[in-house]
Amino acid sequence: MPFFSPSVETLITELNKMPGIGRKSAQRLAFYLLKIPKDEALALAKAITSVKEKVSFCTICFNITEEDPCHICRDGTRDPTVLCVVEKPSDVIAVEKTSGFKGRFHVLGGALSPLDGIGPDELKVKELLARLDGQVKEIILATNPNAEGEATALFLSRLIKPSGVKVSRIARGLPMGSDLDLADEMTLTRAIEGRIEIP
Amino acid sequence: MPFFSPSVETLITELNKMPGIGRKSAQRLAFYLLKIPKDEALALAKAITSVKEKVSFCTICFNITEEDPCHICRDGTRDPTVLCVVEKPSDVIAVEKTSGFKGRFHVLGGALSPLDGIGPDELKVKELLARLDGQVKEIILATNPNAEGEATALFLSRLIKPSGVKVSRIARGLPMGSDLDLADEMTLTRAIEGRIEIP
Repeated sequence: MPFFSPSVETLITELNKMPGIGRKSAQRLAFYLLKIPKDEALALAKAITSVKEKVSFCTICFNITEEDPCHICRDGTRDPTVLCVVEKPSDVIAVEKTSGFKGRFHVLGGALSPLDGIGPDELKVKELLARLDGQVKEIILATNPNAEGEATALFLSRLIKPSGVKVSRIARGLPMGSDLDLADEMTLTRAIEGRIEIP
Repeated sequence: MPFFSPSVETLITELNKMPGIGRKSAQRLAFYLLKIPKDEALALAKAITSVKEKVSFCTICFNITEEDPCHICRDGTRDPTVLCVVEKPSDVIAVEKTSGFKGRFHVLGGALSPLDGIGPDELKVKELLARLDGQVKEIILATNPNAEGEATALFLSRLIKPSGVKVSRIARGLPMGSDLDLADEMTLTRAIEGRIEIP
């Protein structure tokens, strides 16, 4: 069986592990990395190393951060009575871009998806409930407007409502089946303004 | 403008530089790398570093190799009178898998593509001509059977033929296991043109 040199094979295998990168793409990327100047390729290697050394998850909201707690959790001017619950860190960025939300966040780390083996224990649900210490008055459920996100929102609203905290869901100004961080800012702003309390 | 932590932004930027990886894919890959255990992410960083330290191009055939000359150019049992000219290192692997070719290779590093700014000077053409030292009796042009590859083969054959070396082109025809009425016209035309008399 002919093969590339051992280190090229290793690189292809490692690239191939990434989501959406098949064997052919991994090969293409490996050859690209072989072709470019050494310092450019090493910049990528260094960026990966640096991210794993510096970046962790905020112990309060579970957003990614280089300092714990993150800059939003540390920001005293942000309203501590409203929590916006999102699936992933890039959703925090999407909401922040609207400039319309001045509360705080809670990053679940995904959405309920039984088929993928993701239940409440795989998400930061316990940690969300632990934050309902009386100061929080409203939870805005900003999970994605798709099947998993809707199920997660419903699940969370049933879990939180007994505690008396107001629970709202971003308005479905967002087209169904899309992804929160792909939405344009205006749509997302409308969606937040138009949130409806879950009765 | 809200943003991820500086090191995450750097990682996204570096991933985004790779071919076929847009900003969104780069973000997805960055979050994947953030999520997985540290040693798994560092394995990728190490693979990149290792490849840039160990792998270079064979100074004879320009295939990728950890030793110069590469194992094919060093192999005294390989026929030095036949050169198979291919576009890229993975094409060498493809030909090697057939086990039917016992000559040597020459890797061009691409195909002519004026629109992409790739002319003869961007490929190892001069280096190919320099190898025609009298020992080489046949050049098999195994560039891809697409517009760029065909143009490259035509260009090379016109360049090499005056030197008296035999120049051949891999057969274009119907792939084994395929169906005649599923073949495109171009392939079928080539298959009929390239028909071989049954002895």
